[in-house]
Amino acid sequence: MIINGKQIAEKVYVQLRNQISKLSPKPCLGAILVGYDQSSMRYIRQKQKWAEDLGITFELKQLPENIGETKLLELIQAWNSESHIDGYIIQLPLPKDIDAQNIINAISPEKDVDGFHPENQGKMLIGDPSGFVPCTPAGIMKIFESLEVNLEGKNIVIIGKSNIVGKPIMGLLVNAGATVTSCNSKTPSIRAYTSNADIIISAAGKPGLLKLDMIKIDSIIIDVGFTVVDDRIYGDADFDNINIAGPKITPVPGGVGALTVAMLMENTLKAYKKNRK
Amino acid sequence: MIINGKQIAEKVYVQLRNQISKLSPKPCLGAILVGYDQSSMRYIRQKQKWAEDLGITFELKQLPENIGETKLLELIQAWNSESHIDGYIIQLPLPKDIDAQNIINAISPEKDVDGFHPENQGKMLIGDPSGFVPCTPAGIMKIFESLEVNLEGKNIVIIGKSNIVGKPIMGLLVNAGATVTSCNSKTPSIRAYTSNADIIISAAGKPGLLKLDMIKIDSIIIDVGFTVVDDRIYGDADFDNINIAGPKITPVPGGVGALTVAMLMENTLKAYKKNRK
Repeated sequence: MIINGKQIAEKVYVQLRNQISKLSPKPCLGAILVGYDQSSMRYIRQKQKWAEDLGITFELKQLPENIGETKLLELIQAWNSESHIDGYIIQLPLPKDIDAQNIINAISPEKDVDGFHPENQGKMLIGDPSGFVPCTPAGIMKIFESLEVNLEGKNIVIIGKSNIVGKPIMGLLVNAGATVTSCNSKTPSIRAYTSNADIIISAAGKPGLLKLDMIKIDSIIIDVGFTVVDDRIYGDADFDNINIAGPKITPVPGGVGALTVAMLMENTLKAYKKNRK
Repeated sequence: MIINGKQIAEKVYVQLRNQISKLSPKPCLGAILVGYDQSSMRYIRQKQKWAEDLGITFELKQLPENIGETKLLELIQAWNSESHIDGYIIQLPLPKDIDAQNIINAISPEKDVDGFHPENQGKMLIGDPSGFVPCTPAGIMKIFESLEVNLEGKNIVIIGKSNIVGKPIMGLLVNAGATVTSCNSKTPSIRAYTSNADIIISAAGKPGLLKLDMIKIDSIIIDVGFTVVDDRIYGDADFDNINIAGPKITPVPGGVGALTVAMLMENTLKAYKKNRK
């Protein structure tokens, strides 16, 4: 059965549109884009489209590839103290001469709507709701909420250990009372874990990694893989075979990705409420 | 086979004593103790003894049970800007009228040698070595280092999901490339996980939880349980039977606990180096 990410996102958008319509001034989301990477520009345009659709002001700072770390840090400091910017994001990846973690650490945690700053990651881990949860993990939690899954006591397997998806979703699910296993490319047999899992979250970026014979027939598959081969987009799971067989599964695209942008907008509204009170 | 925590800690102390002997002025560790809890006073005395043994100045602020959150926050602010205090700890638990997380969040992350502040927890999770790692998880990593265990690809099961032990050690082990499962009191069958584990870390505080027939004969057992019954201290594991059978196991006391204090001293030296340069 297909889990329709767009439909779940649309419900979030209806609520956000309604709440934002009552606000004046409107929330403002900033975005910093360095260079001219095609995918990054596409992501930024998508975020801009949704922000404006919801009534959020979108402010884009487009910077040349050779901006350099010092100058970029100055711009970040300026936005940290700009009161009309409620929250902002730095579109990743950054050019190789810039230390991305340095840049992320410089964002004010109060405006870090991507939830990548160590303080927000820490709050997420210890279960302090005052911070910002990274958008993709937050979107996955929204899917579970929408499916009315009781996570307590569930056997959940996560494939991949990135700072953006794998580790934060692990923290959120442990806090929700699930039994959580984190697998990675060094795990001798992924199958040994997935075959007993109630829920599998795959964020490996390896098309074909997750096959029907590796999973339970009543499991839920959240596919965070996103790999482009010959202009076609693939998730990690063998979607067609799994979908026919019975498990609930998110498609790629149209699954988790749709929620990621919605959660960015939810975080922006949260920043507005925190910073303007 | 017994893993001798005291012996491993002693090696750490030898190195610290040597490094600290060359420093002037000496590092200073502060401690705030609220109330007169017997166990807390015992822990504080133990930390003081080791600090002074290593040449670290120990400054204790003992406060009455009824100090209140506002006054305590003022004292924390004072210590945050006191340049001679390199790092400090607030002995937990705090009286019930004080929100412990509020207090922890008020400690300057640069002086948070217990590693409980969200920023330090976040740095630990994302693998940024500039923060402070909580002492018990850091002590467990020191045990693995001492045993020369290659953690990559290992199947590790953690029982317990506290902010002080279970969740941080999960983050550290995932970062080290292990396959890590976090179990808790809602896990239907702990045995289903422990029976295949190469390493088990039990921080449940339930004597007798981990029995010989639940583990592999060549596994490593790290027992973080600490329960006092009739003046006797118990870990989570059935120590005697497991020890005779073959697995490597930490005793309670004399295992992880010995390392916890050593790691606090290591964090204090790290704070000194960071804050006085």
